[in-house]
Amino acid sequence: MASPNPSDPLAPLAVTLGDPAGIGPEIIGKAWAVREAQGLTPFFVIGSSRAISAVWNGPVISIGAPDEAAAAFATGLPCLEIELAGEVTPGQPDADGAHCALHALEMGIGLAKSGAAAALVTAPVGKSQLYAVGFTHPGQTEFIAERCGISRENAVMMLAGPSLRVIPVTIHMPLRDVPDALSIELIRTRALVTVKGLCRNFGIAKPRLVVAGLNPHAGESGNLGREEIEIIAPAIESLRAEGMDISGPYAPDGMFHEPMRDTYDAALCMYHDQALIPLKTLHFDEGVNMTLGLPIVRTSPDHGTAFGIAGRNIASPGAMIAAIRMAEKAARSRVRNAELACD
Amino acid sequence: MASPNPSDPLAPLAVTLGDPAGIGPEIIGKAWAVREAQGLTPFFVIGSSRAISAVWNGPVISIGAPDEAAAAFATGLPCLEIELAGEVTPGQPDADGAHCALHALEMGIGLAKSGAAAALVTAPVGKSQLYAVGFTHPGQTEFIAERCGISRENAVMMLAGPSLRVIPVTIHMPLRDVPDALSIELIRTRALVTVKGLCRNFGIAKPRLVVAGLNPHAGESGNLGREEIEIIAPAIESLRAEGMDISGPYAPDGMFHEPMRDTYDAALCMYHDQALIPLKTLHFDEGVNMTLGLPIVRTSPDHGTAFGIAGRNIASPGAMIAAIRMAEKAARSRVRNAELACD
Repeated sequence: MASPNPSDPLAPLAVTLGDPAGIGPEIIGKAWAVREAQGLTPFFVIGSSRAISAVWNGPVISIGAPDEAAAAFATGLPCLEIELAGEVTPGQPDADGAHCALHALEMGIGLAKSGAAAALVTAPVGKSQLYAVGFTHPGQTEFIAERCGISRENAVMMLAGPSLRVIPVTIHMPLRDVPDALSIELIRTRALVTVKGLCRNFGIAKPRLVVAGLNPHAGESGNLGREEIEIIAPAIESLRAEGMDISGPYAPDGMFHEPMRDTYDAALCMYHDQALIPLKTLHFDEGVNMTLGLPIVRTSPDHGTAFGIAGRNIASPGAMIAAIRMAEKAARSRVRNAELACD
Repeated sequence: MASPNPSDPLAPLAVTLGDPAGIGPEIIGKAWAVREAQGLTPFFVIGSSRAISAVWNGPVISIGAPDEAAAAFATGLPCLEIELAGEVTPGQPDADGAHCALHALEMGIGLAKSGAAAALVTAPVGKSQLYAVGFTHPGQTEFIAERCGISRENAVMMLAGPSLRVIPVTIHMPLRDVPDALSIELIRTRALVTVKGLCRNFGIAKPRLVVAGLNPHAGESGNLGREEIEIIAPAIESLRAEGMDISGPYAPDGMFHEPMRDTYDAALCMYHDQALIPLKTLHFDEGVNMTLGLPIVRTSPDHGTAFGIAGRNIASPGAMIAAIRMAEKAARSRVRNAELACD
C-alpha cells in the first residue's frame, strides 16, 4: 500500500459479539460506555442488538455498513446486525446463538481483510455450541487463520498484558503430551512468526526474545530432563546464528519477575500454563490474546464466555477494553510501519 | 512442654553459613547489619568467621555457645565456629568448604532439636561439592528430615512469600515424569502435612487449601488430560470428607491473582514450576523455603549459592532476611500455640 499519513483517521474496529448468551454483549456495551475516559478509537459490534439490549441498557445504533460507525459512535454503540433467531437467555447458550456468533465471525474476518475494519476483536464463543452446529475448527483462531489463507502453524497465539508478552509453543494438550510435542522446528516457527508479528504490530524492529526451559531449573545440565539440551538450546542457537536476538533456555521460575521482564519483548514458553500462569498472576483482568502471523490484526480478551455470570451485570470489561486498545495500537503500528522491513 | 509466656524471649536462631565460597557469608552479614531496621530477633551463624570476614567488613564475634548470642548480637554477628581447613576463595567451592557446610548443618540441627536454638535457618550449599565429600541425600531438607527421624514423604517443602504459600507435590524431576509420579496418596500426604504445619508454624487453626489441576484448564472435563478426574479430585474429595477445608482442582492459570490468593492459606501444586513460577514472579527477592512436618522450625532463602556473584558485594540479603523473619514467626507461633490442637 502507499504510505498513509500516520495522523489519518483509522477505519473503525470490528468487534464480534461472541456467543449472545455469554458475557460478550455486556462487556462490549461496557467498553463503549467508557470510550471517552479510555480514549477508545471508534468500533462497531457485529451481532444482534437484541442480545445486547437484553443485558445492557445503553444506546445501541443499528448501522448498515462499517463506514457509518464513526459518526454513530459518539452517541451509541454501533451494531452491524446479524440475524439471531429465537429468544436469547443469558447463560443459556443454544444453536441459534452459535449460528449468530459464527456468522458474525465470518463477517468480521471479511471486513478486516477488506480494510473496511482496521482490526478484528473477537468476543468469546462457546465451543461446544459451535461444534453442535457443524463448526470443525479447534477454536476461532484456527478458523480465522484458514479464512486468511494462513496455515495453523503460522498463526501464533500471543498473550499479552501491560508488562508481559508470552507465546505458548504448545497449547491445548494434556501436560503429559507436551515433551514429545516439542521440536526444534516448532520452536523455530513460533519464534520466527513472533519476531515478525512484534515488528508489524508493535513496531519493534528487532524484538528481544527469551525462551523458557521445559524442566525445573531448565533441566540442570541434563539432570532433570534432556529437552533443553536436545531441542530447546539447538533451536535457540540456530535462530541466533541467523541474527535473531534470542536467548535461553532459562529456568522457568526465574523469567517473570520485574527486572527480568524488562530485558525482553516476549517470552516463548513450552506449554500453556508456563505462559499463562505468570501472565494471569500479573494481569488477570487485562490479558489480551493476539494472533500473530495473520494479514489482519486480531485480538480477543483472554477469557471465556462465562455463561455462569452472564446477564448479571457483574462481568468486568477490563480485558475487552485492553483487547480493543491493543488492536488499535497494532493497526496504527501497521500503518505507520508499512515500510519497516519486518520480513 | 509447659505453656511459656508468649512475651518470653525466644532462644536465638541458628543460621548455618552454607557453602563458605557462596553468597551465604555475605547475605548473613548483611542481614545482621539491618537487624534493627528490620526488627530481627537475635541469631547466630554457625560456620567460619574467616569466611565471613573475607567478604563482609562488619564485626564478627566468636561465641562458645548459643546462650552467648543474644548479648553479642547488639555489637557484632555472633559466630559459633566450625573449622574450615585451607583458604576460602569466593566463587571457588572446594572440599574443605563442603566439610565446613556439612558440619555446620549437623550442629544446627542438633541445637534446634535441643532447643538451644529456637529455629534453624540454612544458607545455600553446593550440592556437587557435598556429593564429592560423601553426602548422599538429595538436599539439605532430606538430611534434616532424617536427623529428625522424619521420613522424606513427611517432610514437605513449602515456598512462601508475603502474599502466597505454595507446596509442590512433586519437586525435582523432569516434567515428563510428573504425571506418573502423582497419586492420590501423595497428594493426601502433602495436604495433611501442610495443614498440620500451617497450624503449628502460623497458628492457623483450620487452614484453607486449594489444589491445582495438572493440565491446562484443569483438564477441561477430561478433554485435556484425565489426572484431575482420576487422581486429584478423588484426593481432594477424600480429604474434604475427613473435614479438611480444601478445594479444587482449579485451572492452574486462574489460581494466583490477588483476589484468588486472598481466599486460601496455601496452594498445593502438581509440579515444581507450577508452584515456583507464581511465587517468584510475585516475590522474587523474598521467597522462603520452609520445611513442614519437622519437630523443629527450619527455613532457608529460596535461592542457591550463586557462586558466580560471590564475593562481589552485590548479593541481595532479601530472601535471607525473609527466612530469618519467618523462622522467628514460626518459632513464636509454636510457643504461643503449644496447646492448639494441630494434630
